[in-house]
Amino acid sequence: MGLRDIGEFGFINRIRRGCLTRPESVIRGIGDDAAAFRTDGRLVSLITTDLLVERVHFLREAISGLDLGYKSLAVNLSDIAAMGGTAREAFVSIAIPEDCGLDYLEDIFVGMKTLAAEFAVNILGGDTTRSMTDLVINVAVYGVVPESEILTRDAAAAGDVVFSTGFLGDSRAGLHLILEKACADTPELEALLTAHRRPSPHLREGRFLAGRPGVRAAIDVSDGLSSDLQHIAEASRVGVRLVAEKIPVSQNLTHYCDRFKRAALEYALSGGEDYTLIVTAAASAGGAIARDFEQRFGRPLYVIGEITASPGIELVHADGSTTAVAPTGWDHFKGH
Amino acid sequence: MGLRDIGEFGFINRIRRGCLTRPESVIRGIGDDAAAFRTDGRLVSLITTDLLVERVHFLREAISGLDLGYKSLAVNLSDIAAMGGTAREAFVSIAIPEDCGLDYLEDIFVGMKTLAAEFAVNILGGDTTRSMTDLVINVAVYGVVPESEILTRDAAAAGDVVFSTGFLGDSRAGLHLILEKACADTPELEALLTAHRRPSPHLREGRFLAGRPGVRAAIDVSDGLSSDLQHIAEASRVGVRLVAEKIPVSQNLTHYCDRFKRAALEYALSGGEDYTLIVTAAASAGGAIARDFEQRFGRPLYVIGEITASPGIELVHADGSTTAVAPTGWDHFKGH
Repeated sequence: MGLRDIGEFGFINRIRRGCLTRPESVIRGIGDDAAAFRTDGRLVSLITTDLLVERVHFLREAISGLDLGYKSLAVNLSDIAAMGGTAREAFVSIAIPEDCGLDYLEDIFVGMKTLAAEFAVNILGGDTTRSMTDLVINVAVYGVVPESEILTRDAAAAGDVVFSTGFLGDSRAGLHLILEKACADTPELEALLTAHRRPSPHLREGRFLAGRPGVRAAIDVSDGLSSDLQHIAEASRVGVRLVAEKIPVSQNLTHYCDRFKRAALEYALSGGEDYTLIVTAAASAGGAIARDFEQRFGRPLYVIGEITASPGIELVHADGSTTAVAPTGWDHFKGH
Repeated sequence: MGLRDIGEFGFINRIRRGCLTRPESVIRGIGDDAAAFRTDGRLVSLITTDLLVERVHFLREAISGLDLGYKSLAVNLSDIAAMGGTAREAFVSIAIPEDCGLDYLEDIFVGMKTLAAEFAVNILGGDTTRSMTDLVINVAVYGVVPESEILTRDAAAAGDVVFSTGFLGDSRAGLHLILEKACADTPELEALLTAHRRPSPHLREGRFLAGRPGVRAAIDVSDGLSSDLQHIAEASRVGVRLVAEKIPVSQNLTHYCDRFKRAALEYALSGGEDYTLIVTAAASAGGAIARDFEQRFGRPLYVIGEITASPGIELVHADGSTTAVAPTGWDHFKGH
């Protein structure tokens, strides 16, 4: 039996045992957007880390150093956002192959610093070393959150309303434009490229929602809406009923799908890398939360469905029919 | 101009600018054994991270999964030790090539957990992904230290006594045995292999010393004694006078050098990967510190020299002659 058979999550489950030697200070270990643990202060500490490998996560010839640096920090900040936290310190490890130029490397750090400055994050350390073949970047981010406001995956309850803090599917459309070497000759297509290359971590949105009574579970959309909802459903032992026509699709994605004869709903459901937050909240509080969110950010907090007591994710279509949604996110070892 | 020209430390100096967007909470950023920053508690937070890349740091066919896991955590714990801290939480990112078997991977985590359990460290998260060619492991460790006890590189003062918490050079001899495919047919040679494969992080020693008045600067021996002393000398704007016959060499290394016609002093000066701590202390306090250390740990705290006001590292030989010592540690990009 190999990695291909058990998959990424099977492997993680195998190595979990024996990881906690001092469980009393741990709030969340393996299995949420970030680890959460107590130190000696009032705030809970959060740490998340992401490893980006050339030819697996990016193609050096297809992404600028600026975008690569920006994105490798953004994906980590998004994990802190999904815990309701404030990002504070970043640590960058980088393994550099001989054919990687100094300009490209410096651009990586310029891209990171641009985003770090936007969210008052320090780049505080890391490691630099050689690599024989591929460029490898590991970013770890430290953040904090008040314990009473931490947002985990396992807190969703039947009857909760499910929100998205932004559009879904844009990033995947942008990726397809890059992979298909399509010419982004309209502002809409250009915007999709930007959504893929420079995703905005929803740290302010996560912090705002974390402080609102009634908000329960959260995750960021990295693998894809259906897969990430599945993480919430499994951790919370609930199901999800999504309403197809409420899933927020941008005009940019509509333009792309019209032009290239694609189904926007599929992009939104399984696209991934949107880095919006999916948040559940008690139905009684949902209206006020959505209203205040819109007032604060000048754009809607989209209701996309509700949490159900029965497991599984189902999609309600405009005609009232329903279909089961399979999680379609990426498993790094199974290759799908 | 490329990386080869400016080297690892030149590159780090280039990317340092603009890394701190919120300097007020930072005690140490880039350039010490670990980053140190304030959160909202009494203790200072420490974070260190190390990236290990196949064919650069290790050969998969020459190291067991158990040893690779043990060592990849040990090098990080050693950095926390060199700050005087207590290690608390570890985060493991791993990029896995297709030809890496599940047994080997699980052994990596068994090796890590063995060491983690010894020092009550939790493995709290990380990332798992594919790699196209090389196995890559990034470990990040979070620790804490009281602010008044933090040990940095820049606190050495002229007249300080310089200590080593253990033998030097054993690890390099072990590496040579492996590279030369020599048969470790004596207990002494076997011990050198163990020193290389399973270095003990001196966390207890670092903690003990950090709590003693008069202790000033510290670093762990990762690159090699002469290079690591150079880091202290540059950060503290001082020099070092080493006494050749006081540099602690194990009987195992003496046995190896006798047998293979090598110079033990060279191994001790430039070996690297010993993961002992080099600590400086006010001369007036040095005697009591060394005595109490020996009582606590049942082995000596070795005096190896003193801090001088004039820059550079000089070595005093038994006949009273002195030679200048060039830092000979590893630069990942210059290749020496």
